[in-house]
Amino acid sequence: MGWAIALHGGAGDIPLSLPLERRLPREETLRRCLNLGVDALKDNQPPLRVVELVVREFENCPHFNAGRGSVLTTDATVEMEACIMEGNTKRCGAVSGLSTVVNAISLARLVMEKTPHIYLAFDGAEAFAREQGVETRDASHFITPENIERLAQAKAANRVQIDYTSPEKPGAGDSQTGTVGCVAVDGCGNLAAATSTGGLVNKMAGRIGDTPIIGAGTYANSVCAVSATGKGETIIRATVGRDVAALMEYKGLSLKDAANYVVESTPSGTVGLVAVSADGEVAMPFNTAGMFRACATEDGESEIAIWHSLGDGA
Amino acid sequence: MGWAIALHGGAGDIPLSLPLERRLPREETLRRCLNLGVDALKDNQPPLRVVELVVREFENCPHFNAGRGSVLTTDATVEMEACIMEGNTKRCGAVSGLSTVVNAISLARLVMEKTPHIYLAFDGAEAFAREQGVETRDASHFITPENIERLAQAKAANRVQIDYTSPEKPGAGDSQTGTVGCVAVDGCGNLAAATSTGGLVNKMAGRIGDTPIIGAGTYANSVCAVSATGKGETIIRATVGRDVAALMEYKGLSLKDAANYVVESTPSGTVGLVAVSADGEVAMPFNTAGMFRACATEDGESEIAIWHSLGDGA
Repeated sequence: MGWAIALHGGAGDIPLSLPLERRLPREETLRRCLNLGVDALKDNQPPLRVVELVVREFENCPHFNAGRGSVLTTDATVEMEACIMEGNTKRCGAVSGLSTVVNAISLARLVMEKTPHIYLAFDGAEAFAREQGVETRDASHFITPENIERLAQAKAANRVQIDYTSPEKPGAGDSQTGTVGCVAVDGCGNLAAATSTGGLVNKMAGRIGDTPIIGAGTYANSVCAVSATGKGETIIRATVGRDVAALMEYKGLSLKDAANYVVESTPSGTVGLVAVSADGEVAMPFNTAGMFRACATEDGESEIAIWHSLGDGA
Repeated sequence: MGWAIALHGGAGDIPLSLPLERRLPREETLRRCLNLGVDALKDNQPPLRVVELVVREFENCPHFNAGRGSVLTTDATVEMEACIMEGNTKRCGAVSGLSTVVNAISLARLVMEKTPHIYLAFDGAEAFAREQGVETRDASHFITPENIERLAQAKAANRVQIDYTSPEKPGAGDSQTGTVGCVAVDGCGNLAAATSTGGLVNKMAGRIGDTPIIGAGTYANSVCAVSATGKGETIIRATVGRDVAALMEYKGLSLKDAANYVVESTPSGTVGLVAVSADGEVAMPFNTAGMFRACATEDGESEIAIWHSLGDGA
């Protein structure tokens, strides 16, 4: 029993040959985000605030598919989505279809706190952002040259692309970028989860993925908190977040067993997740080649990793 | 083991004193929808088609809160949403933020069948509707005088209104109108669920409720199919649809026990649902004053009801 935190920067087909210039800035961001979260937990900030802080930091980094760095729709626009949930109260907030909001995760929290609703999308969400006075920027803030290139590649291959899909031709550029998320628990067992994403490269305008769906990409209750990443449609169908918790509640599984079961039950190459339980256990399973991830616990466990480690059983 | 069907036209604070001129047209619609579904099942149509047919019929009727008859947002606009899911394949489709599409449920099915995605919303969903050539109408088709009056009442009372909320002043008009849904199973255990709604009276523009959320307002797998109604935010938090199925799968409960447990676990006055299991069991629990509902099974069970019946245990 103690605090714990886990975070991810997306799962997918991340080649072991990922060039250092792609790998190091992302590992550096994972480290910075992890330290930020650990410091906040040590400072006794509520887990809801901790996961929001960490995801904001990810959103501000152009190396991940959320906030600045969000991938582009088939219309070459940005449509960001995010979700945040507090375990004990089950209060939650979600947003989709944002094109100007710098920190989607904080707008999701405002939906939770300032409206009678859970979920606002598209024009209504943008209008709410204006009303709340959150920081907004024009498209040039969000659209990176790398994402213009990723969209061109996806269109050339006529595919809608999951995070970290390898380019059709080796060396044809870097198509690897991922959804971000964080889960945390304090020493009293208070849990929270947050996830933020730009969605899929070359997605249709208006497409909603798993990230803002309570019980799919994001979920927290009094038992555990979960943030998922991968092929959104698979995660929605499998109600990944809720299922991790339901297996613990209804079948008595441990967090690790529940999380592994859910990931193993989905098609190979589609899903990864990070989860923490009320008693400070951590799980970070994935059935893809890799998942950018990091975790730390009060009793000194700490990890920053991309691929399966020896002894993972994967 | 045999076919079964259950449908609802919304749960809420439906007074026993509901005037006959309000009650009879709705009971007549329930009967017509039930017969339509039963005939389709007897005709060996797939459950996915059966639930779509029934929900289309509801959407075309101005007495329920879906399609024609959808309630109004705070901006006096219509934003319809719908979701359909097939149990065995777990294929599903959902739409939100529709303002011109006559049958949202059929557009949800087209999202499932014609796109790589599950869920399209707002402008992107409207653009997809145009591309697919589905029937669209201008606002005057959807906005009824009764819903203009309901919005005025909700604004006067400064509240966002759940389906079938009683007016503040007795006799001050009829605020009762509800989300619609249908679940069906054929004699081989193939399941499907569908739900359609206009959402909450006086909701914020852009608000998404439980209806299109897989695992909340709509869910089907190989075990059961569920369509929920009531306070969307409560249903989202409780992942109502998925939880009925998870209690059967992970805890071994019967459909009736699982459905009752889920409804009893949510705050009183907020939730109702209809569900069928793969072996043809039916459940229609609610913790509100009433729920417009109907069901039939191959072995001759049949019911059309609004309030709790004697022996309901409610």
